[in-house]
Amino acid sequence: MIISALLTSAGINIGVCALLLSLYSILRKQPANVNVYFGRRIAEEHNRLRDAFVLERFVPSPSWILKALQYTEEEILAVAGLDAVVFLRIVIFSIRIFSIAAVVCVFGILPLNYFGQEMEHRKIPSESLDVFTIGNVVERSRWLWVHCLALYIVSCSACLLLYFEYKRVSKLRLIHVTRSGPNPSHFTVLVRGIPKSTEESHDESVTNFFTKYHASSYLSHQIVFKAGKVQKMLSGAKKVYEKFMHVKHTVIEKRCKAGVYRCGLCGCSSNSFQLIRTSFDRNGKKIDTGSSDPSIREHEECGASFVFFKTRYGALVASEILQTWNPMHWVTELAPAPDDVYWSNLWVPYRLLWMRRIATLLLSIVFMFVFLIPVTFVQGMTQLDKLQQRLPFLKGILKKRFVTQIVTGYLPSVILQLALYTVPPMMMLFSTMEGPTSRSGRKRSACCKVLYFTIWNVFFVNVLSGSVISQINILSSPKDIPAQLAKAVPSQATFFITYVLTSGWASLSSEVMQLFGLIWNMISKYILGREEDPTAVLTFPYHTEVPKLLLFGLLGFTCSILAPLILPFLLIYFFLGYVVYRNQIMNVYRTRYETGGLMWPIVHNTTIFSLVLTQLICLGVFSLKESPIAAGFTIPLILITLLFNEYCRKRFHPLFKSFSAQDLIDMDREDQQSGKMEEIHEHLHTAYSQFPHSTDGVKINDESSEERASSSSQSDGSGNKLSHPTLRGLPIARLQKAVKTVCLVVSLQKRDTSV
Amino acid sequence: MIISALLTSAGINIGVCALLLSLYSILRKQPANVNVYFGRRIAEEHNRLRDAFVLERFVPSPSWILKALQYTEEEILAVAGLDAVVFLRIVIFSIRIFSIAAVVCVFGILPLNYFGQEMEHRKIPSESLDVFTIGNVVERSRWLWVHCLALYIVSCSACLLLYFEYKRVSKLRLIHVTRSGPNPSHFTVLVRGIPKSTEESHDESVTNFFTKYHASSYLSHQIVFKAGKVQKMLSGAKKVYEKFMHVKHTVIEKRCKAGVYRCGLCGCSSNSFQLIRTSFDRNGKKIDTGSSDPSIREHEECGASFVFFKTRYGALVASEILQTWNPMHWVTELAPAPDDVYWSNLWVPYRLLWMRRIATLLLSIVFMFVFLIPVTFVQGMTQLDKLQQRLPFLKGILKKRFVTQIVTGYLPSVILQLALYTVPPMMMLFSTMEGPTSRSGRKRSACCKVLYFTIWNVFFVNVLSGSVISQINILSSPKDIPAQLAKAVPSQATFFITYVLTSGWASLSSEVMQLFGLIWNMISKYILGREEDPTAVLTFPYHTEVPKLLLFGLLGFTCSILAPLILPFLLIYFFLGYVVYRNQIMNVYRTRYETGGLMWPIVHNTTIFSLVLTQLICLGVFSLKESPIAAGFTIPLILITLLFNEYCRKRFHPLFKSFSAQDLIDMDREDQQSGKMEEIHEHLHTAYSQFPHSTDGVKINDESSEERASSSSQSDGSGNKLSHPTLRGLPIARLQKAVKTVCLVVSLQKRDTSV
Repeated sequence: MIISALLTSAGINIGVCALLLSLYSILRKQPANVNVYFGRRIAEEHNRLRDAFVLERFVPSPSWILKALQYTEEEILAVAGLDAVVFLRIVIFSIRIFSIAAVVCVFGILPLNYFGQEMEHRKIPSESLDVFTIGNVVERSRWLWVHCLALYIVSCSACLLLYFEYKRVSKLRLIHVTRSGPNPSHFTVLVRGIPKSTEESHDESVTNFFTKYHASSYLSHQIVFKAGKVQKMLSGAKKVYEKFMHVKHTVIEKRCKAGVYRCGLCGCSSNSFQLIRTSFDRNGKKIDTGSSDPSIREHEECGASFVFFKTRYGALVASEILQTWNPMHWVTELAPAPDDVYWSNLWVPYRLLWMRRIATLLLSIVFMFVFLIPVTFVQGMTQLDKLQQRLPFLKGILKKRFVTQIVTGYLPSVILQLALYTVPPMMMLFSTMEGPTSRSGRKRSACCKVLYFTIWNVFFVNVLSGSVISQINILSSPKDIPAQLAKAVPSQATFFITYVLTSGWASLSSEVMQLFGLIWNMISKYILGREEDPTAVLTFPYHTEVPKLLLFGLLGFTCSILAPLILPFLLIYFFLGYVVYRNQIMNVYRTRYETGGLMWPIVHNTTIFSLVLTQLICLGVFSLKESPIAAGFTIPLILITLLFNEYCRKRFHPLFKSFSAQDLIDMDREDQQSGKMEEIHEHLHTAYSQFPHSTDGVKINDESSEERASSSSQSDGSGNKLSHPTLRGLPIARLQKAVKTVCLVVSLQKRDTSV
Repeated sequence: MIISALLTSAGINIGVCALLLSLYSILRKQPANVNVYFGRRIAEEHNRLRDAFVLERFVPSPSWILKALQYTEEEILAVAGLDAVVFLRIVIFSIRIFSIAAVVCVFGILPLNYFGQEMEHRKIPSESLDVFTIGNVVERSRWLWVHCLALYIVSCSACLLLYFEYKRVSKLRLIHVTRSGPNPSHFTVLVRGIPKSTEESHDESVTNFFTKYHASSYLSHQIVFKAGKVQKMLSGAKKVYEKFMHVKHTVIEKRCKAGVYRCGLCGCSSNSFQLIRTSFDRNGKKIDTGSSDPSIREHEECGASFVFFKTRYGALVASEILQTWNPMHWVTELAPAPDDVYWSNLWVPYRLLWMRRIATLLLSIVFMFVFLIPVTFVQGMTQLDKLQQRLPFLKGILKKRFVTQIVTGYLPSVILQLALYTVPPMMMLFSTMEGPTSRSGRKRSACCKVLYFTIWNVFFVNVLSGSVISQINILSSPKDIPAQLAKAVPSQATFFITYVLTSGWASLSSEVMQLFGLIWNMISKYILGREEDPTAVLTFPYHTEVPKLLLFGLLGFTCSILAPLILPFLLIYFFLGYVVYRNQIMNVYRTRYETGGLMWPIVHNTTIFSLVLTQLICLGVFSLKESPIAAGFTIPLILITLLFNEYCRKRFHPLFKSFSAQDLIDMDREDQQSGKMEEIHEHLHTAYSQFPHSTDGVKINDESSEERASSSSQSDGSGNKLSHPTLRGLPIARLQKAVKTVCLVVSLQKRDTSV
């Protein structure tokens, strides 16, 4: 690839970016798109913002950039939570380290490479990009120590910056934990693997176990039911209901608002249905006695429960300690926050979890290797001569210069990019199958999977298959890998530059444009005729964006010494990303759950991996260039980097695995002294109810609890109170029978109408 | 190697074994050797046994074998503890699995191999051993499914047996924990990384921290002092004392018994020394006030402390929870048992531990590779033709048949064996440097190191260097390793058979003979003229014996399918080992500390490793023999084995990392109800005193505590009590000054005598 091809590619991308960004600055001011571009603000601060929006409408276009830059870290922390701040710290870290690298490498290494006298110089526009790589330095050059020195500078400043960032993030996490106000998840432990017993129900065994062994701190608990099953039954009943009510249904009540995933027929409450449903609760007593058979119950309750403790410290202790001598029973962990609970995975028996994990691991690996096919095809395109040999009929087309430039400079990245779009949903699916109990855990697991996938498929496969196309068995000799990488990375640097241009820049502008959201908004508004649904705001897609940033970091590190030309493009990417992500976090995405900065260890480890990989590649290059001094000096650098990582693992990582006793006890004492504790305890139960306002209007628990409240107030005198079900003991058999009764009644109604 | 060579080797070994064992049965009856062969019994149950011994003296020789076989597991558990039982379970497991393997392979595979028609058959005595290996089976043989089936049988029965053993050991461990009576280590937490403070001493900060955050369960604590320093000072003072007392010293008092590591001059108490020393304590008050400067104290106390809790559960909780937001401060772990504490490592600052660990890891790796030199030399000997090419002058000697047989059949193993004797002490040294806080931890760590070392150097290096002598770079291509192993293992099987004969059998008979102990006993008794010291009994060398057993297990598994001829020899080894080890455990070695069966996870993992390695090698062999069906069926077997391991890791391994809350709470309650708790609490302090009866007669703490007791009883009326030092606050500065005073007084005395 020559400079003019690179400039073509850069030109196209700058054009596309400018177009999209200016389009964005126009579109965002249209009231019709307000819930695409200001989803979070509408959902969270609607009243104030609808007014503010009117004022903003007449402000000139680039103001959003200034505005995005003006937010302070405190504002972002308050609005979008710690995860968003940690995400932005990745961008800031990247900007810092690559600024240093750019200064060092562009001024120190680029001239050395260019005047390295290995290749002939042509006119600048048709100069090959390879003259800017280390490939142009002659063997046994006396200038290779400059490369080694630059490597030292980059590595050491990266380690220093990483240390300060880790320290800062762990301090932020500490503040997040201690000053975020009472959090129900701190008081709650998720217990799984409750042993089956023929004598007592899960409910009773949880009570017995915790009153026996955690008497001083145990407060109460709430059994988890097989939500999947119940919901399946309910939806089944609803379908039956729809089918039969279809005949009779005429008016859709005005208050019944159609949501995104609702078809307008179901989910609307007709009086008859409500009447019938509420009557079940009245009949509750009879049905409940019917379901007291323990063999039925075992199938209904799943062996999991949320157990509430009086203090945060009590919950922490219960979550960290091995409970019984069978480690598969009474497995405890701190519960995720109420909004974060992934209910439909809670029923998975604990003893099957490890199998699911292994199965998804295998699936992901298989998926990774299947994905090799498009990547190798794409890679063939950057080496047109080889492609022409294979497919001779292309020769005529590829002779045209502009076509060549487009094909080598733009098309491969686009194809790769499109193929990569399928990855995050697949990985998210795998992560769901793995059985995490929290949404944030699922996202984090998907993030790791996407990260490994991207690094493997974008970096390694491109490098290895690109340099030794049609020779896959390179992987079988690890000793040669550094040497192979050393040969391949400089020659693949041009591909990575175009990758930064296309994938990086373009993805940022499409991120800010929210193309999918915009189109969906149009369709749902003008074609389906729905109203805006402010609750349907997405959360930030960390599982796609974090791997993207880290991949560009990896490309930056590995290319910085060998092909420094990538650094300016990368810096532009990170600067643009800084503005775009700040804007998106503040305006578009909503924060429904938080990990509390748990992403940072992933970022840290990946950066260390990138650094060590860079050093290994440099070691290979220095050996190939026959510079024993530079190679010799690289080895201690690798050891120092690994030692630094080990230190950070000891010093900071435990903070991301658990909470410290000191902090929790201090918080407990503060709450006890201020008398807030009782209030928190009262709130715990409602926070973790499994069937709260379900989105399709069937408010099972709420109604039954209202019902319970009213009936218990009525029955205070009649002594009927005990027979009413409690919230936590809500028997599923009752629901099951209730649903059956719905079907029966509905079919009776149908017969009535048909008669 | 041919059959007659093997028989020569076997003959020599059987002769040596028979000689040594009959020598043992004579020597053990000599009263002079009683403390070599009955060390444990004398040390622990002397009165009863001295008599019993007289009766035993006239019983015929092989009785010890019968006796060793008669002990029940309960007896061994009572006498030698859980570790010994777990160790014997390894032998029993090996006997079981290799009996199954022997039946399957000797009757199923051996005939197939022998009639495999790849090689020509000669007369039986000069038949090459290779005809009994899989190397003799023709390619694409239709009988390879028998090998595959045998592999399935061996693997599945190994997994089943492993599962039951793991279950049994974990149950034994549970019983060991719950029914072993009050154990001070269950109530004690070792705290390290106590932060330095200019305002308060470590002693005060421990009190403040634990009364603040563990108020309900905290009992008291005991600061650890820099024992190394104190002991250095004391020994320094002793040296000065010796030097000067040498002139004056005439009579060694009779009660002053010379120990093993004492030179007869030091350590004996003269009245003047004792008088002076006790007078320091009387002066204690003044000196103590002198050392209250915190800057001095910081250097004296080290940042570690034993913290005692009221209940076992309290200690467990404190040990498992992250204490503060700095994970390098207030690091807690359950304390080792009092006898198990490795005092001289406790002063190591916690923040340096990870560096020490990495340093020793690197050192061990370097040592491993340095050791390659003798191994490759040894390996050359089994391939005499190659050796003759290199060293032509040997040709004359090697032509003699008997020499050849000795050289190929016996010498290599002996040299390797001698070289291997240096390994355990080196690894023990490395493990000491690593900084473990318990003797058992040190031994376990050394055990792992020796294990890795043995497997690497005996198995892999022999296999790889033996087959491709002078071609080390095989290691660089992991894809070829299964194929290379598949080629190498059958051809190296003869070496492993001789290794079992020499190293295995001979090491057992030298173990039972206790050659070193016998010689040392002779020297110390007849040359140095010392009396028996019943306290100088060794503990069982798990760090050498466990790796030995596991290595033979690995050899057995890997050779079982490919060269089943090894199995009978191996079975004899394990049967002999069963008798010998039972005898040694009951008679010779003493149990001073226990890990509570923590060795078993190492055994389990190594066995799984051996199984998977066997399967991989078989996979390679089946591929080389071009039997896709057999190879195809091997792959699921590997996956199943790995899954089984993962299940065991989930199901059993947590029990070996921590105690369960349920058990500890039940034990606490029992003790509280029976009123034993106060008694246990009182005992805790004395259990963990750092300077108890020191072996060289300078009973610092005991005397000072006696002193304290007497003075406090005296001072009850005078109100002088507070000024006396407490045991835990024992100020080192005082000792330091005391030692200085010793030197001063001694030099004064010397002046007196010289005058």
